[in-house]
Amino acid sequence: MTNLFSEQVVKILERKLNFPKKLIPLHEPSFSNKEYKYLKECIDSTFVSSVGKFVDLFESKMVKFTGAKYSIAVVNGTAAIHAGLKIIGVKNGSEVLTPSLTFAGATNAITYCQAIPHFIDSEQVTLGVDPKKLRKYLEKITIFRNKKCINKTTGKSIDAMIITHLYGHPCNMQELLRVSKDFNVPILEDAAEAIGSYYKKKHVGTFGQVGVVSFNGNKPITTGGGGIILTNSQKIANEARHLTTTAKIPHLWEHRYKEIGYNYRMPNINAALGLAQLENLPKILKNKRDIFREYDKEFKKIDGVYLKKEPKNCKSNYWLNTLILNKHKKKQRLDILRKSNQRNIMTRACWMPMHRFPHFKKFPKMNLDIADQIYETAITIPSSPNLLKIFK
Amino acid sequence: MTNLFSEQVVKILERKLNFPKKLIPLHEPSFSNKEYKYLKECIDSTFVSSVGKFVDLFESKMVKFTGAKYSIAVVNGTAAIHAGLKIIGVKNGSEVLTPSLTFAGATNAITYCQAIPHFIDSEQVTLGVDPKKLRKYLEKITIFRNKKCINKTTGKSIDAMIITHLYGHPCNMQELLRVSKDFNVPILEDAAEAIGSYYKKKHVGTFGQVGVVSFNGNKPITTGGGGIILTNSQKIANEARHLTTTAKIPHLWEHRYKEIGYNYRMPNINAALGLAQLENLPKILKNKRDIFREYDKEFKKIDGVYLKKEPKNCKSNYWLNTLILNKHKKKQRLDILRKSNQRNIMTRACWMPMHRFPHFKKFPKMNLDIADQIYETAITIPSSPNLLKIFK
Repeated sequence: MTNLFSEQVVKILERKLNFPKKLIPLHEPSFSNKEYKYLKECIDSTFVSSVGKFVDLFESKMVKFTGAKYSIAVVNGTAAIHAGLKIIGVKNGSEVLTPSLTFAGATNAITYCQAIPHFIDSEQVTLGVDPKKLRKYLEKITIFRNKKCINKTTGKSIDAMIITHLYGHPCNMQELLRVSKDFNVPILEDAAEAIGSYYKKKHVGTFGQVGVVSFNGNKPITTGGGGIILTNSQKIANEARHLTTTAKIPHLWEHRYKEIGYNYRMPNINAALGLAQLENLPKILKNKRDIFREYDKEFKKIDGVYLKKEPKNCKSNYWLNTLILNKHKKKQRLDILRKSNQRNIMTRACWMPMHRFPHFKKFPKMNLDIADQIYETAITIPSSPNLLKIFK
Repeated sequence: MTNLFSEQVVKILERKLNFPKKLIPLHEPSFSNKEYKYLKECIDSTFVSSVGKFVDLFESKMVKFTGAKYSIAVVNGTAAIHAGLKIIGVKNGSEVLTPSLTFAGATNAITYCQAIPHFIDSEQVTLGVDPKKLRKYLEKITIFRNKKCINKTTGKSIDAMIITHLYGHPCNMQELLRVSKDFNVPILEDAAEAIGSYYKKKHVGTFGQVGVVSFNGNKPITTGGGGIILTNSQKIANEARHLTTTAKIPHLWEHRYKEIGYNYRMPNINAALGLAQLENLPKILKNKRDIFREYDKEFKKIDGVYLKKEPKNCKSNYWLNTLILNKHKKKQRLDILRKSNQRNIMTRACWMPMHRFPHFKKFPKMNLDIADQIYETAITIPSSPNLLKIFK
C-alpha cells in the first residue's frame, strides 16, 4: 500500500515531464541572445576583472529591480553573508541566531566571523523562521545589558539574526522586524534563493539592515558564481564596498590597506552575464509561476501530499517547487526520492537541518521540531524556467 | 639636479611608449578569438557555474603546463592560499612565516585561519624570501618540541611558511626547501604572480606542499577573477577539492557536510575564459620577455637605476617589469611615480611591506631592512603583453 503512494507521486512527475529519456535537472539556467552579446562586449573592453562597467550596470539594475538603495556585487552568496555579518557588528564571540533549516553557507559564514551560530526553528506556513516561537524563546533566555541582547546562559551578546526566505518563500517580515526591534538584534536577510520574491509588494532582502541574494548556477538567474549585498544605508554600502575590495585605501600608486579585507568583488565578466540574465528575469519569473500552477493542478488530484504555495500577502519566485508530504506519509520520502532519480527526474531532499551535523552539534539551539518535520516531509522537484516546453 | 634624474627616467618611458595620449595601464589582459568561442560554448552547455567541462579542461591543462600532479581551480589567489594553509595544517593559534614584502592577500589569508603572521625579510637578488637570513633567524628563535618547530618567545608552533615569487621572479627554492626540511615547516608557494616562471627548468608552485597561482585581471593570463591550487599529493588534492566545495559529501539527493567548508570553486564560465587564455600563454610569455629586453636596453643607458632581471638559473615571466633605483636615488621615487602617472603612464609603488600597517603591527617579525629597502627603491612599469605594438 505504501509503495502505491510513492509510485503515484513519481508517476505524476513522470507524466508531467513526458517520461524523460535523459536527466531533467533540478534547476538549470535559461539564456537569451543577450548573454553572448554582453560577454563579447566585456572581452572587447579588456575589463574582465573586478572593475568595469558591467559591475556598475549590474549593481544599478539590481537597485532598480529590488528597490534597495545600494547594492554591492560579490563572488557568491556565502561571501555576501560573511561580509554583511561583519558590517552589522558580528565579531569574535558574538552569537548569531540562524535557522537550522537552510543551506550551510549561512552557518559557515557565521563561523568565518569566529562567531557562534545559535539555531532557531522554522514554521510550516513560510518555511522560514517562526517569529512567535523566536519571541517566546528570546523572552526566556535573554536579558538586556547596556541595551544589548545577552544570552543569559552563555553570557554572550546576540549581535545579529539571519532569516532565510527558503526556496523563495518570504518569511513573516512584519513579525520578525518587531522581534528584531524589541530585542535590539539587527537582521541579515538571506534572500539567496529569493530574487523576485515580495513580502507585501516590497522585494525581500530590503527589510533587514543587510540583504543578500545569490546568483549561483542553480538560482533563477545566474552570474556563474555570484552574490550581492543589498542595503538602504550608505554607511553600510561604503563599508561593504571597502571590505570586499581587500579594504584597500584608494591611491594613485601606493598599495595601502586599512584593515583585514576580503577579495570578494564580482568580476566584470560575471556581471556581464548577470546583466543579461537580469534583463530576462521578468520572463523567467512568469515561467516559474506558470510551472508552479501546472504542478499544483496535478498534485491537487491526490491526497497525502501538496505543493508548497506562497504565503498570504506574498509573492514567491517559486525557486524550487517543493512537495510537502503529510506527516503519516513521511516514510515514503526516501522511496519517492529514489524512484524519481532512477527515472531521470532530479529531485532532492530538503536542506538537512544544521543542528544534525556533528561539527555543529556543540552550538546552542532552541527546540527545532518544525525544522526537523519540514526536512522529513519535503522534496524539491525540477523547476527550471524552460520546463514549460517539456510539460505535458 | 635631482629633478634631472627623475625626468630622465620618465622620459625613457615616455619615448618608449610613444608619448601616450591616453593612459597606458600597468597590465591589461590580451585576448584572441578563442575566448569568445569558449564562452559561447559554455553558455550553450547551460553549465556556467561550479560544475562543467571547462573547469576540468582548465585544471588538466594547468597540470600539463606546470607539471604539478593535481590542480584545483578556485575563485581567486587569496582563497587558494586560505584553503592551502588549512590543508597543510595551519590552525587557530599557528604561526605562519610570510614575507612582509608582498600583496596583502597572503597575510589576510593567514588571519582567516585565525593564525598569526610572522613577517620575514626578502633579498635583493630574487625579491623573495632570503633563505640565509631566515635560517639564522630560525636557529636563534626556535626549538624543536615533538618534532615541531616552536617559536621560543611566543611558545607557538610554526606550522607553515609562505614564500612568494614576487613580480614573477623565482625565489631561491633550493635553499628554501632546505630550510623547510631542516626546521620541519611546510612551504606554501605563492606563485600568484608567477605563471610561466621556472626555477631550474621546473615550474614554480610545484616545489612546496601546496602552490598557488592567480588569474586576476592584472595577471599574465586571466579568468576574470580566479586562482588555482597546485599540489603533487593526491591526499592534499582531494582535501582541497572537498574543502573548496563547501565540504559537501557526495549524495544523490541529500545535502550533507562533513565540516565547515568554503564556497571557493571557480565557476565554469571563468574557466572557459581561462582555457582560452592558457592556450595563448606561450605567445604572451614570449611577448613579455621581449618587453623586458626592450625596456632593459633603454634603462642600461642611464646610471642610478636598473631593470630587475630574472635570477640565475631561473626563467621569470616578467609579470611586472620593475625599476630598482640606486639607494642614493631613492628620494626620486615619488617624483618618478607622480610624473609618469601625470603623463598617462601607469606606474606603481612596490607592495608596501605588511609590517608597516597599523593593523599588522602587533604580529611578530624579524629584522626587515631589505623589504623596506626594496619597497623604497622599486617602481613597477607598464608590462601588458600587447605593448610591443606601441613600443618605439
